[in-house]
Amino acid sequence: MKFPTKVGKSTPEKIYIHGYDLTEDLIGEITLADMAFLGAKHRKPTKNESKMLNALLVSVSEHGFTPSSVSTRLTYLGAPESAQSAVAAGLLGAGTVYLGAMEYVAEMLQEAFKKYGENEDIRVIAKKVLEERVEAGLQFPGFGHPMHKPEDPRTSKLFDIADELGFKGKNSALILEIHKQFCERKGKDITLNVAGAIGAIFSDMEFDYRHVKSLAVASRAVGLVAHVVEEMEYGRKDSIGQKLYNFIEENVDYKK
Amino acid sequence: MKFPTKVGKSTPEKIYIHGYDLTEDLIGEITLADMAFLGAKHRKPTKNESKMLNALLVSVSEHGFTPSSVSTRLTYLGAPESAQSAVAAGLLGAGTVYLGAMEYVAEMLQEAFKKYGENEDIRVIAKKVLEERVEAGLQFPGFGHPMHKPEDPRTSKLFDIADELGFKGKNSALILEIHKQFCERKGKDITLNVAGAIGAIFSDMEFDYRHVKSLAVASRAVGLVAHVVEEMEYGRKDSIGQKLYNFIEENVDYKK
Amino acid sequence: MKFPTKVGKSTPEKIYIHGYDLTEDLIGEITLADMAFLGAKHRKPTKNESKMLNALLVSVSEHGFTPSSVSTRLTYLGAPESAQSAVAAGLLGAGTVYLGAMEYVAEMLQEAFKKYGENEDIRVIAKKVLEERVEAGLQFPGFGHPMHKPEDPRTSKLFDIADELGFKGKNSALILEIHKQFCERKGKDITLNVAGAIGAIFSDMEFDYRHVKSLAVASRAVGLVAHVVEEMEYGRKDSIGQKLYNFIEENVDYKK
Amino acid sequence: MKFPTKVGKSTPEKIYIHGYDLTEDLIGEITLADMAFLGAKHRKPTKNESKMLNALLVSVSEHGFTPSSVSTRLTYLGAPESAQSAVAAGLLGAGTVYLGAMEYVAEMLQEAFKKYGENEDIRVIAKKVLEERVEAGLQFPGFGHPMHKPEDPRTSKLFDIADELGFKGKNSALILEIHKQFCERKGKDITLNVAGAIGAIFSDMEFDYRHVKSLAVASRAVGLVAHVVEEMEYGRKDSIGQKLYNFIEENVDYKK
Repeated sequence: MKFPTKVGKSTPEKIYIHGYDLTEDLIGEITLADMAFLGAKHRKPTKNESKMLNALLVSVSEHGFTPSSVSTRLTYLGAPESAQSAVAAGLLGAGTVYLGAMEYVAEMLQEAFKKYGENEDIRVIAKKVLEERVEAGLQFPGFGHPMHKPEDPRTSKLFDIADELGFKGKNSALILEIHKQFCERKGKDITLNVAGAIGAIFSDMEFDYRHVKSLAVASRAVGLVAHVVEEMEYGRKDSIGQKLYNFIEENVDYKK
Repeated sequence: MKFPTKVGKSTPEKIYIHGYDLTEDLIGEITLADMAFLGAKHRKPTKNESKMLNALLVSVSEHGFTPSSVSTRLTYLGAPESAQSAVAAGLLGAGTVYLGAMEYVAEMLQEAFKKYGENEDIRVIAKKVLEERVEAGLQFPGFGHPMHKPEDPRTSKLFDIADELGFKGKNSALILEIHKQFCERKGKDITLNVAGAIGAIFSDMEFDYRHVKSLAVASRAVGLVAHVVEEMEYGRKDSIGQKLYNFIEENVDYKK
Repeated sequence: MKFPTKVGKSTPEKIYIHGYDLTEDLIGEITLADMAFLGAKHRKPTKNESKMLNALLVSVSEHGFTPSSVSTRLTYLGAPESAQSAVAAGLLGAGTVYLGAMEYVAEMLQEAFKKYGENEDIRVIAKKVLEERVEAGLQFPGFGHPMHKPEDPRTSKLFDIADELGFKGKNSALILEIHKQFCERKGKDITLNVAGAIGAIFSDMEFDYRHVKSLAVASRAVGLVAHVVEEMEYGRKDSIGQKLYNFIEENVDYKK
Repeated sequence: MKFPTKVGKSTPEKIYIHGYDLTEDLIGEITLADMAFLGAKHRKPTKNESKMLNALLVSVSEHGFTPSSVSTRLTYLGAPESAQSAVAAGLLGAGTVYLGAMEYVAEMLQEAFKKYGENEDIRVIAKKVLEERVEAGLQFPGFGHPMHKPEDPRTSKLFDIADELGFKGKNSALILEIHKQFCERKGKDITLNVAGAIGAIFSDMEFDYRHVKSLAVASRAVGLVAHVVEEMEYGRKDSIGQKLYNFIEENVDYKK
């Protein structure tokens, strides 16, 4: 019984990770985000890939009080002995509704090129994707935002960086074209949200769409540190978790 | 009822995080790890702080097949629809036994300076800490390693980087002195492990010891991406999770 | 801002749950499983409903070393300070692959009666369901088992109890008929597994299929107690978690 | 490499659990709560033990909107595809602060008898425990309640049932005596809360105090079903999770 893996192995003197010597090649040489790149691609990123990845993950790591970060705070209130539980509870709320979209965008784009060919005209592919999804009654991941409208400030920033670093490729072109045709069809401006940009740029960086979700989840774990720390700083009595608990308790409307 | 916070706020055009404009000041400007720094310190790190933090978090993010990463794989086997659950399950095993030590090291050092004064001779403080803990029957966090002996390869690397970047300060000096006296007392070489170095360097970067655990947990989330991805690449049948499950099932020794 | 709920409310003297006084009506009067019934149905079960529910949940609460219970043990190894994390980690592996089937069975049956009518001949409905799913390339939840073949010992037991207590109704008849026609079509005996029986009986008890998963998850939490306790009894060094960790570490086959 | 266990084993025809045949001896014969008893004691409970255990677990399974159940609802909002995550997130908040007390009560009582002898006068033991804890600056688990004062309605109910079923023994006597002396010392009535009763009765049932936490956690999982179901019934837009999210977002008080 053997457990084959590319991830890593320790010997008394060395720790190997994805073909690299952790001490010689990684510590001090790469960023934390690059560890996720290594996990997904089994090689170190180039300098531009590292910059792009950090930009993508920074943009998704934090978005204030979300159901996910509030769960982290409530869990910390009940289990302050276990910061890992607070972070884990926050991640569990990062499901299909809030973090799923960037994976679905990447899937939509990658599958479209697979189906219609890498060399087909982008406008033609966009039109086919649009028609297919409308016909099937499917939603468009990456479009719309409850607050950021008509523009998500992160979207153009990420595309600008991608352009500069050489990652604004055919997938970015396709999401932008689908978005354009979608707005025309609807007759109004609909936000191309950050998930749309991220899903496209990950695709242009040649990430498999199935890996996108776990990258996003990892970046959320980093963002959740702020919420654990803030609760510690407030102290139990003044913590957001405690205030929220009191508020809810006072406003329960119990109906038999 | 207001929810005060430094963490963040969104308006239709802007997302503010810890006093910064996410789009203008953070995306493309800082690394993912710096988001954790922001969360703990409410300011962007300097260039050297960012380098040091990335080195620390890279060094702790991955260590091959641990109970934590194996839980991630087993969870993915049962719930492939939910990558966030796989990552969360892995984090839950990152408790006192494997990830606690770096926090305890930081606590031991920070409390020692608080108790004995910032300006007391390091050798004197080390001696007192040593005697106190021996008397109280306490263990020494940061000392010993089941595999890496007599040296943990990450320890000297991290201290070298800390030295170069200006973060090898009094806490590093104290852990090294405690370690020296401890080995003398025991009459043999005992590993100063990576948790010892990390706890000391975080302290020299002026991180509150209570924040160390959540930083470590976040870095593990990034490391766990590799384990989720590898299971996807193997496919269910050949996944480590499935193999392990089969192996255990075949070797159950059931005793009434 | 009010939070309407049927679940519960506390006053200094009383705790109300789903219209009942916890102290007067529930403690000492109902079983733990009945609390889940209350949650799903907003009323206490009859004596027969309680018996049936306990039988169903007992049958699914424990199945030895599964990926889920092994995650619980590995998590306990890393975080013995947090038994709740060990249980939670185990639940996270109770996803679509192992616990989803009973929900899918209930959905298949409930949707079939909705589509073809309560009064249509069972053989006709079964035939239609079968043809539909085969045509759509869908699998049959509740059929097949890697170990229990050609019969799952729990299946007939649960149907016997359901019959005795008055819960072997049209949904049970339908799953049995689909199973019969499925085996005829395949020309061989295929196990009707415990998930098939549970999904059908829950439907005959008039549970909404969407509630089945959380009931199953709750019963797994009860089963996981045994795994936490056994690890405590072995002690760290002899625990299954530790043995497994050592074994994997010794058998890592690292490939660059 | 063998994995010894008392928990269970499957063969094609049989499933054995703790020495019993699941189909013959357990399904239809015992309650769900008894599975936890089996896990902790490796034998089926007597009829009275089963009644008592169900009463204890019913009393702790649900307490309305707690940080734990609110996390469950917020997690369901973000990840409706994964009911197990919602339940798990709720359990993660069931840490030392809310669910720890019953374990600490049981520990205090069991350790007291171990230290001072089974046959020592209860009043003497109570006095010693009281003095020891006051001197050490320790809190008294099981005493006080933010809402239920001067009496927790569950406490006397549970002691009445324990008395009737033969489980109101020396541990119950000790907690009641410590409580009496504690109130005299303070010169006022302080609530003996449900955790105090549960910790004592579990001890009188001869449960190891280290097992109490996981039993409590399991019962919470059952209680959380009601919260998942209610969110499903409301539907996303009207769910408590969504309302809470909106409310917090509108009331964020962001301070640079």
